[in-house]
Amino acid sequence: MSKPLKIVQYKYYLKESSKDGIISFVGSNPSSKASFFYRAFIDQSLRNIMKRRFEECFSYSNTQGSNHLRQAISGLFIDNIRVSADSILITNGSQQAISLIAQTLIRPNDNVLVDHTSYLGIEKPLKDSRARIQSFPKPLHELSYSGIEKVIKYVQPKILYVIPDFANPTGQSLTGELRTFLAEFAERYRFFLVEDRSYSCLAYPYNPLLPSLLSLSSDTLSIGSISKCIAPGLRIGWIASAQINNINKLVLQKETVDLGSSMLVQEISASILEELRKSPKLMDTIKAFYQRRMELLLSSLEKYMPEDFSWTIPHGGFFVWVNGPKSLDSRSFFQRALLNGVGFTPGCLFYYKKPQNNTFRLSISDVPDTDIEEGVKRLAKAASEELSQIHHSS
Amino acid sequence: MSKPLKIVQYKYYLKESSKDGIISFVGSNPSSKASFFYRAFIDQSLRNIMKRRFEECFSYSNTQGSNHLRQAISGLFIDNIRVSADSILITNGSQQAISLIAQTLIRPNDNVLVDHTSYLGIEKPLKDSRARIQSFPKPLHELSYSGIEKVIKYVQPKILYVIPDFANPTGQSLTGELRTFLAEFAERYRFFLVEDRSYSCLAYPYNPLLPSLLSLSSDTLSIGSISKCIAPGLRIGWIASAQINNINKLVLQKETVDLGSSMLVQEISASILEELRKSPKLMDTIKAFYQRRMELLLSSLEKYMPEDFSWTIPHGGFFVWVNGPKSLDSRSFFQRALLNGVGFTPGCLFYYKKPQNNTFRLSISDVPDTDIEEGVKRLAKAASEELSQIHHSS
Repeated sequence: MSKPLKIVQYKYYLKESSKDGIISFVGSNPSSKASFFYRAFIDQSLRNIMKRRFEECFSYSNTQGSNHLRQAISGLFIDNIRVSADSILITNGSQQAISLIAQTLIRPNDNVLVDHTSYLGIEKPLKDSRARIQSFPKPLHELSYSGIEKVIKYVQPKILYVIPDFANPTGQSLTGELRTFLAEFAERYRFFLVEDRSYSCLAYPYNPLLPSLLSLSSDTLSIGSISKCIAPGLRIGWIASAQINNINKLVLQKETVDLGSSMLVQEISASILEELRKSPKLMDTIKAFYQRRMELLLSSLEKYMPEDFSWTIPHGGFFVWVNGPKSLDSRSFFQRALLNGVGFTPGCLFYYKKPQNNTFRLSISDVPDTDIEEGVKRLAKAASEELSQIHHSS
Repeated sequence: MSKPLKIVQYKYYLKESSKDGIISFVGSNPSSKASFFYRAFIDQSLRNIMKRRFEECFSYSNTQGSNHLRQAISGLFIDNIRVSADSILITNGSQQAISLIAQTLIRPNDNVLVDHTSYLGIEKPLKDSRARIQSFPKPLHELSYSGIEKVIKYVQPKILYVIPDFANPTGQSLTGELRTFLAEFAERYRFFLVEDRSYSCLAYPYNPLLPSLLSLSSDTLSIGSISKCIAPGLRIGWIASAQINNINKLVLQKETVDLGSSMLVQEISASILEELRKSPKLMDTIKAFYQRRMELLLSSLEKYMPEDFSWTIPHGGFFVWVNGPKSLDSRSFFQRALLNGVGFTPGCLFYYKKPQNNTFRLSISDVPDTDIEEGVKRLAKAASEELSQIHHSS
């Protein structure tokens, strides 16, 4: 029997952690509170649409997506511009972007290379296209450039998929130098760099973003989304590429799977992005909203966690990655944590080869500020219990 | 070299016919005027959402779709109820429904059987899943039941795909008796009946619908959409099935490709459907709007077309299917029609085996009332010219 899909396993942890009284660091949905920051913009945008663009918004979109929206995206989100609105395809969130890329670029048995850990939602679309998912034997930032090159030469990937900023699940970012090397490798070894920038819009204030891979290599397909920084309920993401022939193939595939995204949500999204351009401080408010939660999490971990635990220090996004002592199995630790009233996602869900079972992910996206310290206290108590039990049995 | 995709060929005809001065019977988009009938409902719905359901509408939907919307659909569109809201998956229009069904049910080299002519948009999703598309050698209603059974036994389809009401491209409907036979065959020969009811909501007033295949066989997957009768810009369709295990598989696939549809458009759509339930006459207004265009087309064809042309008499939807004399090739006839200021879709685009090139499709969906008679005059003039030229050269 084959192993259950990661997404199915994840739902188990999500469900168990959503029970009454549990403080859950599992879910990675943006806080529903964040959309309230946009409420006035959305209100205004809906009024404009009903007055001026009614007919357009309730008709089919062209398959590539509303010009309006593509222009707003190219202005706001695509840094170091190599691409114009013509080089952007609108998708239903980043998940559809991944799915369309898999359907368009992958032939059976092609290798897709990912970091040591990666987003669990790529598993099913890649398997549907009969890709083989390969991963680096260590986190990219722990490997030498020649070590990375060796893996690339051995695997001969069709695609290298990375989350350059505040990655899911580790919260870490690729260094600028590493980005330059990856871009060079993509050109030298003829593979597509697929960068998933879903979290890039959530760089905490005063933490400028490093250049996108799109700005470094024309072999890049760059995935973006407004789900994390504006609202996931709009289902708006995109793929940008400097190579128009890639976009054209993806447009045909988008037509195959749903003809095009909803014109109404595209126009609402365009209108929100236009307002954002006029009020750039609003974006900082949202980033600061998450930064506060992250700081609460990090200071609580520092204060309460037992020795032998270490964690990443992210500068944006939602995730902290925790390493426990080698003897810890985060799947059984999860059960003890639940009994203590706290939930997290065991690390094994994010590995595509041999998992390190002593790891787990904490997400601050949907935990109220007031619950964070208490959640970590419970986690620390559960950790002490678990370690003394392991010690006792060994 | 392989033939260009039907959708690519179609775009050529669509584009040529959209040039200045051409009256186009090509496009099958619903008239943008139709959404104005809903304007007050949409306005009300947006106000309600901003007031009462803001948080919900801008968050992720559950993957299967908003309960609200699924309940509204099961109440309004699923006749002879065999299925509840639990048996419905929300999709981004009927195109995504077809794509998800192909991805979920088809294994490479499975046969998919379609009527003598069928919707051209099924080609690419089915080919992506490596299905073989087979078609009946004549229109279903021209075959005996034993003739139909013989084809089914020979082809051993995994899926039989039909458009039971006001079909694309012929405008014709399956008789009640034929539906019963197809349902029996599905159970006897173990295939899935996929019925595409995209046009079923457009039965002209006083033309009651025949039972859906969903109401006749539990082996049916029933596709529906609000694109044709409400607004395509919302991108809301669905799949209904009495067998929950089918729906569960499709939900997993929906999660794979885009996580779920936009909650905002789902809630707007639910709200429109609820209003529609309270004002059923509005639906009749829309049906009558298209019926008037259809009657204008049919009476003009009667009045102007040369002998040797015959056509279908639809009782709903957008399409009329025209048969010319055997010697006519509707692809070259298209060029002459363009010179006369009128466009249509050559019939060959709708065949999956040997095409009958003397056929073509006329769509009334987006032709203003005032253009229809003039359009047919031009078509008739072009037809006379084309026939005399054929006569002359032979």
